[in-house]
Amino acid sequence: MKNRIFIKKLREHIGKEVNIAGWVSARRDHGKLIFIDLRDISGKIQSVVLPKDKALLAAADKLRPEWVISIKGIVNKRPEKMVNKNDANGDIEIEIKEINVLGKARDLPFELGTDINIDTHLDNLPLTLRAEKYRDVFKIQAYIVKAFRDFYTNEDFVEIQPPKLIGDDAEGGANSFDVSYFTHTAHLAQSPQLYKQIMVGIFERVFAVGNVYRAERHSTTRHLNEYTSMDIEMGFINDHHDIMSIENKYFLYLEKELKKHCLGEFKRLKTEIPAVPKNMPSLTLREAQTLISKETGKDCTKESDLEPEHERWLCSYSKKKFNSDFIFITNFPTVKRPFYTYRDEKDPTYTNGFDLLFKGVEITTGAQRIHDYDSLVGSMKDKGLDPTRFSYYLQAFKYGMPPHGGFGMGLERLTAKLLNIDNVKEATLFPRDLNRIDTLLSQ
Amino acid sequence: MKNRIFIKKLREHIGKEVNIAGWVSARRDHGKLIFIDLRDISGKIQSVVLPKDKALLAAADKLRPEWVISIKGIVNKRPEKMVNKNDANGDIEIEIKEINVLGKARDLPFELGTDINIDTHLDNLPLTLRAEKYRDVFKIQAYIVKAFRDFYTNEDFVEIQPPKLIGDDAEGGANSFDVSYFTHTAHLAQSPQLYKQIMVGIFERVFAVGNVYRAERHSTTRHLNEYTSMDIEMGFINDHHDIMSIENKYFLYLEKELKKHCLGEFKRLKTEIPAVPKNMPSLTLREAQTLISKETGKDCTKESDLEPEHERWLCSYSKKKFNSDFIFITNFPTVKRPFYTYRDEKDPTYTNGFDLLFKGVEITTGAQRIHDYDSLVGSMKDKGLDPTRFSYYLQAFKYGMPPHGGFGMGLERLTAKLLNIDNVKEATLFPRDLNRIDTLLSQ
Repeated sequence: MKNRIFIKKLREHIGKEVNIAGWVSARRDHGKLIFIDLRDISGKIQSVVLPKDKALLAAADKLRPEWVISIKGIVNKRPEKMVNKNDANGDIEIEIKEINVLGKARDLPFELGTDINIDTHLDNLPLTLRAEKYRDVFKIQAYIVKAFRDFYTNEDFVEIQPPKLIGDDAEGGANSFDVSYFTHTAHLAQSPQLYKQIMVGIFERVFAVGNVYRAERHSTTRHLNEYTSMDIEMGFINDHHDIMSIENKYFLYLEKELKKHCLGEFKRLKTEIPAVPKNMPSLTLREAQTLISKETGKDCTKESDLEPEHERWLCSYSKKKFNSDFIFITNFPTVKRPFYTYRDEKDPTYTNGFDLLFKGVEITTGAQRIHDYDSLVGSMKDKGLDPTRFSYYLQAFKYGMPPHGGFGMGLERLTAKLLNIDNVKEATLFPRDLNRIDTLLSQ
Repeated sequence: MKNRIFIKKLREHIGKEVNIAGWVSARRDHGKLIFIDLRDISGKIQSVVLPKDKALLAAADKLRPEWVISIKGIVNKRPEKMVNKNDANGDIEIEIKEINVLGKARDLPFELGTDINIDTHLDNLPLTLRAEKYRDVFKIQAYIVKAFRDFYTNEDFVEIQPPKLIGDDAEGGANSFDVSYFTHTAHLAQSPQLYKQIMVGIFERVFAVGNVYRAERHSTTRHLNEYTSMDIEMGFINDHHDIMSIENKYFLYLEKELKKHCLGEFKRLKTEIPAVPKNMPSLTLREAQTLISKETGKDCTKESDLEPEHERWLCSYSKKKFNSDFIFITNFPTVKRPFYTYRDEKDPTYTNGFDLLFKGVEITTGAQRIHDYDSLVGSMKDKGLDPTRFSYYLQAFKYGMPPHGGFGMGLERLTAKLLNIDNVKEATLFPRDLNRIDTLLSQ
C-alpha cells in the first residue's frame, strides 16, 4: 500500500500525517468521541475520531473487531494525564482524518484472547492464532529456527533438503505412514537420519529443518504426528561429546538471540529466557539411575531407559544442583538405541548416545554413529534387520566415512517447553494428531 | 577432532605443523615420493611423503580414493617451478609426518567426476554427489534458500511451518498422494497455499520453505514428484505488481549474495551469475501472445496459457530486447487459475495472476488473491467446488482479511536453470519420480 508505515515507526512522525493499516482490535464509544484500537504486525495504536466530523463518526461507528482498515491521520502526543505507561505507544495517538475499509468481518464467536478450551482453540485457528499470545509464541518459534540455521551455517554446516517420501520402511516398526505412490507403497520419513548421514560423506557438516512423521496412536499433550525436526550431522568428531558441545553452543547463541529480539514477547508471555550454562551438566544413564535410586529409594538401575518421572526428577536435580534447566544423559544401552548408534568402546552393551533433557522432558536425541561398513552391517544383523534393504544407504559407508554424529530436536516441543506451554499443540501452527487434521476426524 | 584445521586455512600456517583430515581424492606414486591429494569441505591440498620414512611410505602406499584419513604434517611453500596457478592451494603443499586412517573405502565402481549416465548417477548418489560438480551445485542451492529467508526476514516477513499432511483434497484433481492416516485417508499438500493465506491474517507477511508433492505421472527433465517450495504471502498490497516487485528485489539480493559467496562455484561450473534487472520486463498474456503471433506467424492469441515453446520464445525475446533472463507474464485467464485468484477488475475473465519466466521456463506462479469472503465463496462455486469443504480455510476470510498475494517457487528448478543444468534431477539431492525413490521402483 502506498505510503503505508508500520505502527512501530509512528513515533518518528509525531505531528505529521501518516497512513497506517491493520485490524481493528476494539472500537470504544466515549460519548462524542470514538476510539479505534488498531494493530498491525509491528504493534498497536489508539486512534480517535473527534466530534466535529459527523461523516467520519458514522464511518467509525460501523467498525467491528477484526475489520481490516486503513487510516489517514495525524500522530499526536497524548496529554500527560492520558498517557498509558504499560503500552509501547501509550503516549501517542492518531487523530483520524480518513477511514478506508479493506475487509469486513462477521461477529466473532468469542473475544480474541479470552480463555477457551483447547478444542475450541484448534477448531478456530485461523481466528484464534490472531490473539497476541499466539502471535508472540510463533514469532519466538521463527527466531528459534532462524537461530538454529544461522548458528550452524556460521559453524560451516551446509543446509540440505532431504526427502520426506521414502521407499522402504527398512527400520520396520508400526510407526510410519503409508503413501500410495503410483503402483507402489511409499512411506513418510520418521527422521532424515539416513540421508543426513549420507550427506556427511559429501559436506562433512550438514543441517536440515523439515517435517517428520510418526504414526503413533498418541493423543497426549507432548506428541504430534507431524512435527518440525531440526537436525544436524557432523563428521570428524572424536565422540558424542563433540556433538553435545556444539548443541550446547547453539543454546548459548539462542539465548543471546532471544534476548536481542524477543524480550517483549517473553515479558507478555510472563516467561523468562532460560540462562544457558557454558557447560551443561551431564550424567551417564547409569550414574543418573544410581542417583535416582539413592535419592528416591526406588531402584531403577535395572531399567534400560528413563521414565517420564525420572526425566522430571533429573531436571529438578539439575536445577537445584547446577542451576541449569538443561542436563545431558549419555550412554544409553545398545538394546534401546537404533542400529546406527556407535557402541561404547569400553562396554559395547552401552552406546555413545545421549538425550538432552530440558525442564522435565527430553528435547533431543543424539549420538555418535557407526562409520565402519562392516560394523554397521553387523549391527543391523544384531538388530534383526536385513542389510540388503539398506543397500542404498550403505553405499556411503562402502566408500569412506569419517567418525560422525548428530542430533535431532523437535521445534514445537522446544517452543512449548521454552515458553512453559503445557500442551505442545499450542506451540504448533496446525497440529495433526490421532483425532484431528484441522477439524476433528469423525471416528 | 582435536586441533584439526580446515584446508582453506592452511596458508595461515606456512612453515608450521598442522593436523588436517578429509578424503583421499588421489594417490600418485612418483618413484620414491608418494603424493596424496586430500579434500575436505573447505578445499583441497596436495600432500607428499618423502623417501626417507619407509614406514610412512608403506602406509601411504595402501591409501585409495575415498579413504578418510587425518594427516599431521608441515605446511611448505612449493618451489616456484612446482606452483600450479589453476589451484587455490597450488603454491603450498603438506609434508606428511603422520597418517591416521579413519575410514577405509572399497574400490570405486567408476572414477568420481567422470561422465556417467543419469541412471548410474542416481543409483549411486551417496558416492556420485561427492564429485566437485555436485558439491558446488548443492552449496549454491543452500545459498539460494538462505538468501530467500534472509531477504524476506529483513522485509518483516515471519517464517511459518505449515503442515504437509492435509485432511481433505478439497481442490480435487488427481494430483495428490493419498496417505493412510489411522482410520482415514489424508493427503500430501501440493502447496502451502491455503495455510499461508490464513497466516496473512495473523502475521501480514509470511514465508515458508518446505516439501510439496505432485502425484503427476511425469518422467521428464523438469518435473519432480517431491520438491522444495519457497513461498511467500503478503498482506496490504495494491495488486499483484507489489508481489512482482518484492520478488524482483529478492533476485537482486540473490545476485549480490551469490557474487559474495559463490564465485568459485560458478566459475568451476562454467556458468555466469545472471544480471538481474532493477525492473524485470513484464507483458500481459494477451500482449505476449500478440507478439508471438506477429513474430512467428502462428496465431496463439486464442490459447488460454503459454506452451513450453512460447515460454522459450518469450525468454529469448526478453534477452534480446531487454538483456534480461527474466520476464513476467501477467493476467492469465480466470479459467486457467485456481479459485482463490483475484480477478482483473476491468475484465473478470482475466486474473491478477502472473508467472515469472527465466531462461526459457516458468519458475514462479503468483497472484493477488481474493480477500473478500463472499467473492471467494462465489469463485469456488464458479469452479464447481463445494465451499463447505473449505470451511476451515474460510474462517480466515469470515473474520477480516486484507488485500494480499504471494508466489511459490521450486528450489530445485531454480537451481537447475541458474546453473544451466538440463535435468532438474541433477539439482535435487534425492529426486523422487514416477520410476524412482532412491533405487528404481520395479514396475
